Amino acid sequence: MGASNQSAGRRPVLALTVGEPAGIGPEIAIRAAWERRHQANCVLLGDAAYLAMLAADIDPAIRVSALSSQAVRNAGLPHFGPDRLIAIDVPLAAHVKAGQLDHLNGRSVLATLDLALEGLKAGWFGAMVTAPLQKSTINDAGIAFTGHTEYLAQHSGTEQVVMMLAGEPAGSVTGAAPLRVALATTHLPLQQVSAALSVEGLLRTLSIIDQDLKHKFGLAAPRILVCGLNPHAGENGYLGREEIDVIQPALAAAQAAGIDARGPYPADTVFQPKYLQDADCVLAMYHDQGLPVLKYATFGRGVNITLGLPFIRTSVDHGTALDLAAQGLGRADSGSMLAAIDSALAMVAASQTL
Amino acid sequence: MGASNQSAGRRPVLALTVGEPAGIGPEIAIRAAWERRHQANCVLLGDAAYLAMLAADIDPAIRVSALSSQAVRNAGLPHFGPDRLIAIDVPLAAHVKAGQLDHLNGRSVLATLDLALEGLKAGWFGAMVTAPLQKSTINDAGIAFTGHTEYLAQHSGTEQVVMMLAGEPAGSVTGAAPLRVALATTHLPLQQVSAALSVEGLLRTLSIIDQDLKHKFGLAAPRILVCGLNPHAGENGYLGREEIDVIQPALAAAQAAGIDARGPYPADTVFQPKYLQDADCVLAMYHDQGLPVLKYATFGRGVNITLGLPFIRTSVDHGTALDLAAQGLGRADSGSMLAAIDSALAMVAASQTL
Repeated sequence: MGASNQSAGRRPVLALTVGEPAGIGPEIAIRAAWERRHQANCVLLGDAAYLAMLAADIDPAIRVSALSSQAVRNAGLPHFGPDRLIAIDVPLAAHVKAGQLDHLNGRSVLATLDLALEGLKAGWFGAMVTAPLQKSTINDAGIAFTGHTEYLAQHSGTEQVVMMLAGEPAGSVTGAAPLRVALATTHLPLQQVSAALSVEGLLRTLSIIDQDLKHKFGLAAPRILVCGLNPHAGENGYLGREEIDVIQPALAAAQAAGIDARGPYPADTVFQPKYLQDADCVLAMYHDQGLPVLKYATFGRGVNITLGLPFIRTSVDHGTALDLAAQGLGRADSGSMLAAIDSALAMVAASQTL
Repeated sequence: MGASNQSAGRRPVLALTVGEPAGIGPEIAIRAAWERRHQANCVLLGDAAYLAMLAADIDPAIRVSALSSQAVRNAGLPHFGPDRLIAIDVPLAAHVKAGQLDHLNGRSVLATLDLALEGLKAGWFGAMVTAPLQKSTINDAGIAFTGHTEYLAQHSGTEQVVMMLAGEPAGSVTGAAPLRVALATTHLPLQQVSAALSVEGLLRTLSIIDQDLKHKFGLAAPRILVCGLNPHAGENGYLGREEIDVIQPALAAAQAAGIDARGPYPADTVFQPKYLQDADCVLAMYHDQGLPVLKYATFGRGVNITLGLPFIRTSVDHGTALDLAAQGLGRADSGSMLAAIDSALAMVAASQTL
C-alpha cells in the first residue's frame, strides 16, 4: 500500500464508509469522525449532499467539504485541517428515509467499498473503517453479496481472512489489556461448524492471526489461546473428537511453524482473567462461542477487525439499527465507531514503526 | 421435604458433600463451611476422620465433631452451635493421596450423595451443596455414573432437570443484579446439539425454570430471555432453521402457558446490560453459548444450581483441580463454594417465605 498521505506528523487518513444510508451508519460516522478530527483525517465515503445535510442537523458546527472521486483520482487527496470533514461523493440513487431500506441505493453502498479499495491501493488512505450495511439492500439490487468481509477479501485477491473482535473490557475485570477474540468459522448454521473445521484451515487461520498481530498490532511474540469445539474441549474424546482429530494436529503444526498457539482449552475456562492475562488473542471455533463474552466485556465498545487483508480494516461490531434510525438523530451510540477509528489509528501507527 | 431443622431463628442446615477426596473439594468445603458458620449449619458428608485431620491442618481453630449416619437416623441431627462443624461419617476405603485418584474410594463418594438425598427427604437438611467429584473415580469403581446432576435426578424420581449457573458479576458491568444462565442442553458434543432440541423439551425446560425462579428464588414474575441456536439467531432462517422450527414454537407455547419467555435473541446481543437488566434468567441452547460469559462475568464466584429437583441443590462451578490439590493446602480458591452456600441459604429463605 502507498503512503502518500501517511507521512509522520500529519493526522493519518482513514476512509470511513458510511454504510446503509437508512441506518445509523451515516450519523455515527459523522459524529465519530468529528469527535476524532484532531487525531485522524477521516474521509467519509458516501453521498456528499446527504452527509452535509445530516451533519448540519447533528451539529451546525460540523463542516463537510465535498470532493468528487474523479478530482481525487486526478490530483490526489488535498490536505485538510481539523476544521472540517471531507466527503468523497458516492451519489445515492434514491432519497433516504431513515429506517426504510431502498434497494435502489444498494449499488451506491457497494460503490463506497470499491472507492475505499481503490484509495487504499492508491495510497490515499492508511486504513478503512466501515459503518454497518444491510446485506439485503444489496441483494435486492440484484447483486450477490454475502458481507463486507467476504467482499473486501475477494476484491483484494485475498484467499482467506479471519474475523477478530476486540475491545477494552469495561470495568476492571481483566485490567487494562484489550480482549481479542478471533473466529475459526463465522456466519454458519451451528450444525455446519464441525464439518467446516480442518487442520489446514485452522493452520492458515493461526498463521494469519500470528502475522497480523505482529505486523499490524506490533506484538513481537503474540500468544494465541485456542478453544476446543465441544464442551470441556471434548473431555479427551468423551464429548466429541474434533479436538483430537482436527484442533490438536493444527496446533502441533502451528507450533512447529513457530506460532505460539496453545490449547485446545474449554471455552468456559479460557475466558477467565488468569488465562486471558497471558494471551494476546483467543481463537474461538465459532461465532457464539466467542462473541457473547467479547460483547459482554466490551459493552458496546467492540471493534470488528479483518485480519489477512493487504490493508487495515476495522468496523463497528453492531448492525444498522434501522429501528433506532427511524426514531431520528441522537439515539444511536457512536462508541463502537469511535473504537473502530481508534483501533485503525493504533494499527496504522504499529504498521509504520516496523 | 420436611423442615424439622429449618425452623425460623436457627441457622439453616445445609448438607455439604465433599466430593472427590483427592481433589480440592474437602479443603474448600471445610474452609467455606467454617467461614459461614454463623450463617449456616453446614454438615459435611464425607470421611469424618479424614475431614477432622484436614481441618486441623487448615486451621487448628476449626473443630469437627463426627456423627455416624446411623446415629442421625436414630435420633435426628442434634443442634450444634457455630463453634464447630459437624461431619456425618461416610468412610473412605483407601488412604487419600492428594491429587491421585483411587477408584477404591468411588463408592464412598457416591454414598455421600445417597446420604444427602436421604437427609433431604427426612428433613435433616434444608438444601444440599456439592463439592466437585471425579466421574472417572466412580466409573473405575465399576459403577455407571454420568454426573452429579443426572444421579440426583434419577434418585429423586425427577424426569427432567435444568442446569443453571448464576453469580454476581464482578465489577459493575451490569450493576448488582445476579446473572443467571440456564442451559437447554449440557454435556453433548456440539454436533449433537441441534438434534437434541425439541419443542416439547424446550417447553419443559422453560416451565421448570419458571417454576423454580418463582418457588426457590421468590421471583413473582420471572422473565426468561431465550437465545437462538445459530449465529444472529438464524437471521430469519438464512443461518439455520432451528429458531423457526423449534424455538419459536416452544416460546409461543410457553407464552400461552403464562411463562414470560422472550426471544429467540442472538447470543451476542442478549448478554448486554440493556437486555440483561430486564431479565431474571437467560436460556442458552448449549454449554459454550452460555457459560463462557457467565464465568467471565462472575470471575470464580459462579454457582451451579440444579432446577427441577424436589429439593434445593447448589454446587461449585469448577472441577476437582487435582493439580492444585497435589501442591498442598492453601492453593485452592473457596470462592465458588462460598457462593454456593450463600445461594443455597438465599433459596432456603425464599422457599420458606412462600
